[in-house]
Amino acid sequence: MTSDQFRAYGKELIDWIADYWDGVDERPILPAVSPGQIRSMLPANAPETGETFDEIISDLDRIVMPGLTHWQSPGWFAYFPANASFPSILGELVSAGLGQQGMLWATSPATTEVESHVLDWLVDLLGLPTHWKTTDRGGGVIQMSASDSTHTALVVARQRSTAPASSLVAYTSSQAHSSVEKGARVAGFEHIRLVDVDSTFAMDVETLERVITADVAAGLTPAFVCSAVGTTGTTAIDDTRRIGEIARRHDMWHHVDAAYAGSAMICEEFRRYQPGLDLADSYTFNPHKWMFTNFDCSVFYVSDRKPLIETLSILPPYLQNAATDSGAVVDYRDWHVPLGRRFRALKLWFVLRHYGAEGIRSIIRKHVALARDLEGRIVSHPSLELVAPTPFALVSFAHTGGDDRTNELAGAINRTGHSYVTPSRIGDRAFIRVSIGQTHTEAEHVERLWATIAAYA
Amino acid sequence: MTSDQFRAYGKELIDWIADYWDGVDERPILPAVSPGQIRSMLPANAPETGETFDEIISDLDRIVMPGLTHWQSPGWFAYFPANASFPSILGELVSAGLGQQGMLWATSPATTEVESHVLDWLVDLLGLPTHWKTTDRGGGVIQMSASDSTHTALVVARQRSTAPASSLVAYTSSQAHSSVEKGARVAGFEHIRLVDVDSTFAMDVETLERVITADVAAGLTPAFVCSAVGTTGTTAIDDTRRIGEIARRHDMWHHVDAAYAGSAMICEEFRRYQPGLDLADSYTFNPHKWMFTNFDCSVFYVSDRKPLIETLSILPPYLQNAATDSGAVVDYRDWHVPLGRRFRALKLWFVLRHYGAEGIRSIIRKHVALARDLEGRIVSHPSLELVAPTPFALVSFAHTGGDDRTNELAGAINRTGHSYVTPSRIGDRAFIRVSIGQTHTEAEHVERLWATIAAYA
Repeated sequence: MTSDQFRAYGKELIDWIADYWDGVDERPILPAVSPGQIRSMLPANAPETGETFDEIISDLDRIVMPGLTHWQSPGWFAYFPANASFPSILGELVSAGLGQQGMLWATSPATTEVESHVLDWLVDLLGLPTHWKTTDRGGGVIQMSASDSTHTALVVARQRSTAPASSLVAYTSSQAHSSVEKGARVAGFEHIRLVDVDSTFAMDVETLERVITADVAAGLTPAFVCSAVGTTGTTAIDDTRRIGEIARRHDMWHHVDAAYAGSAMICEEFRRYQPGLDLADSYTFNPHKWMFTNFDCSVFYVSDRKPLIETLSILPPYLQNAATDSGAVVDYRDWHVPLGRRFRALKLWFVLRHYGAEGIRSIIRKHVALARDLEGRIVSHPSLELVAPTPFALVSFAHTGGDDRTNELAGAINRTGHSYVTPSRIGDRAFIRVSIGQTHTEAEHVERLWATIAAYA
Repeated sequence: MTSDQFRAYGKELIDWIADYWDGVDERPILPAVSPGQIRSMLPANAPETGETFDEIISDLDRIVMPGLTHWQSPGWFAYFPANASFPSILGELVSAGLGQQGMLWATSPATTEVESHVLDWLVDLLGLPTHWKTTDRGGGVIQMSASDSTHTALVVARQRSTAPASSLVAYTSSQAHSSVEKGARVAGFEHIRLVDVDSTFAMDVETLERVITADVAAGLTPAFVCSAVGTTGTTAIDDTRRIGEIARRHDMWHHVDAAYAGSAMICEEFRRYQPGLDLADSYTFNPHKWMFTNFDCSVFYVSDRKPLIETLSILPPYLQNAATDSGAVVDYRDWHVPLGRRFRALKLWFVLRHYGAEGIRSIIRKHVALARDLEGRIVSHPSLELVAPTPFALVSFAHTGGDDRTNELAGAINRTGHSYVTPSRIGDRAFIRVSIGQTHTEAEHVERLWATIAAYA
């Protein structure tokens, strides 16, 4: 492909994407495909000779589009959002176009320095402890997902402990994201405690203390505890301060998982949900969830980068260079499992500059206000009830008529095509998660959802 | 940003990227910046109110460009390539534009099915064992990097062993990529053996057997061995068949790291370098190195997906769904550490279709021919000598005058700005790595490099 062809096809695809976003609200969110149907449209073998790009683009409509679940629909209320935005898409485009590989500072100084700088910006924007900045003793790094961030924290916790690995224990609540249990298993923890929760689905701190005491008495070594600020089930909020204090007392690594809710901390009124962060050793949040930055962009902060780098640094001869030797640079290869890395900070930089802090705050506050409004309607409705509080923009509710009615209601919503929610369970009970957070979700989209809910209920 | 603004700025950036590629050969490959210089051009705080996109684009030239190391220059001979191409950039653009999150089949059937299908295509294209296909008992998945793929293999090897984790041993050669040692450390292996190499820098298989015997005698359990097809230092080639036989004998997981060289297997003549793959349990290669697909795109194959999924599967209530329950679909969340994942197969699909198998073969063969030609000139030159064979497109050579002369020569090449090589060491000796593999590298670029080498030597 010549650069002139790239110009032509690139512009055609920019229009194709703009058309997609212009029309995404008209598409049924769930694709009507069965397993194998997309594959059945693909030829059995790769082409021997090259095809025209016109054919490739036309297959986007013919083959790909019917198999998409439309995460960017403004009627997307499922899971947590994976929200993207136009400035973010353009950041990803430029990143691909520049083809940088920032494993070392020396292999792309701008990739490293823009990332360090933008993540330091976010420390201030989110009101995080200032010593988490790369200019201080901590630092941030972009990972692929919160699962990677949490797994990394677990590995550091394991490595810094002097006790045998087989005696180490990791703690989190029974409502924590599955990535904590998975990460602990991947990191080789043989003892993982899913601590009971209280009536708000937050970790029961007394139970945590009891379990730790029993483990210590049994000769085990508490090594890691994860607090959730906004669980995946219902956005329950663990007591980060008390858990941090317990972690200090037992010399455990305290990791805070704010994958979803972390973005909301750009608004000061939400920061009371994560007190005592000075007692956290690491923290993760995903701009690719609720900060309009397309997947993948998970931020991982450490309060002290030394144990992280000691755990992950290996320097073979082909990576040695003067800048690294000087100690004056950040080499992000030592901050995560992968070696290579692309220029992901570009899209975050584009988003922060395009919206400005004020622009981001106003969209997040709008989503939260829409959620509170929906919460109010549910509370007032005789056949509906909340199953959990709504601190952010996730509304968790059920039909008072029992699980079957709740599941039928979820099915009715999802069959509309215009709205999509996640049916889930907490304890023994079915409930519906309505997560409001797609970049372009407005009051009208929540009204449309409510009309369906009210009609059924 | 409205969709009209996205159209306008998107097209402007398409042109900006095309201009960059048109002119990249004129830019000095290494940036003339010192640590902190890029950051010093960025404001201390994120903007409170949004900025115009014109400002953002102009800062790409003002702030970002001076800090780039130009991996996409045709004079790039450093490390291994991280080669991109126009069709791949467009694939990444579309992926970002669609904002898919393919953690489950149900959350984006096309993301999953295109990926499974294209990786099955590659099994045939590369002549890999057909049972590695997802339609058979194995399967492929795109990971971020070979480090992630190798780490995943190590975790599966650890989990499938019934011996205590503290007794497990991982083996690889002293010339294996650092990701094997790092991955083993991250996965909690307490015993990692870097086996000595022979005169071609391939693993000495007799030594491997001796070390295993000694470990078993000491009560340890051999659990994992990694063969390299193309080491990072000099593209040395381990004996995959013999190592596979040893792995079978000791019930070890046999992982093959062909991160760089795997792409070359699209040409039948290179397949003799990886015999006995039927004895491999997993395999990784990076289309983001030498298959014109921009970072990140590392392919990880397993010969049997069952132990992989058993190791990594966790199914919380909010991820339960009918398609998963049916067992008829692939849920890639169970194939790696991260949960979320973007539509990375699009760019690989675009590349395979745009070039066709024949187009990819012809570029790889051209790179190899250029390397062989350079190798011939080095062999014929009185002051230069090879330090290792050239099975693919990496030429490893030194000045006969000793390390100082070799390092001076590397410095002279890198100061030209038009060519960039990696000075490295093997054993006690300095040498120069010339890796020919950027998408647009032609004979003229190698001629220009040779002129510098010849002038110095």
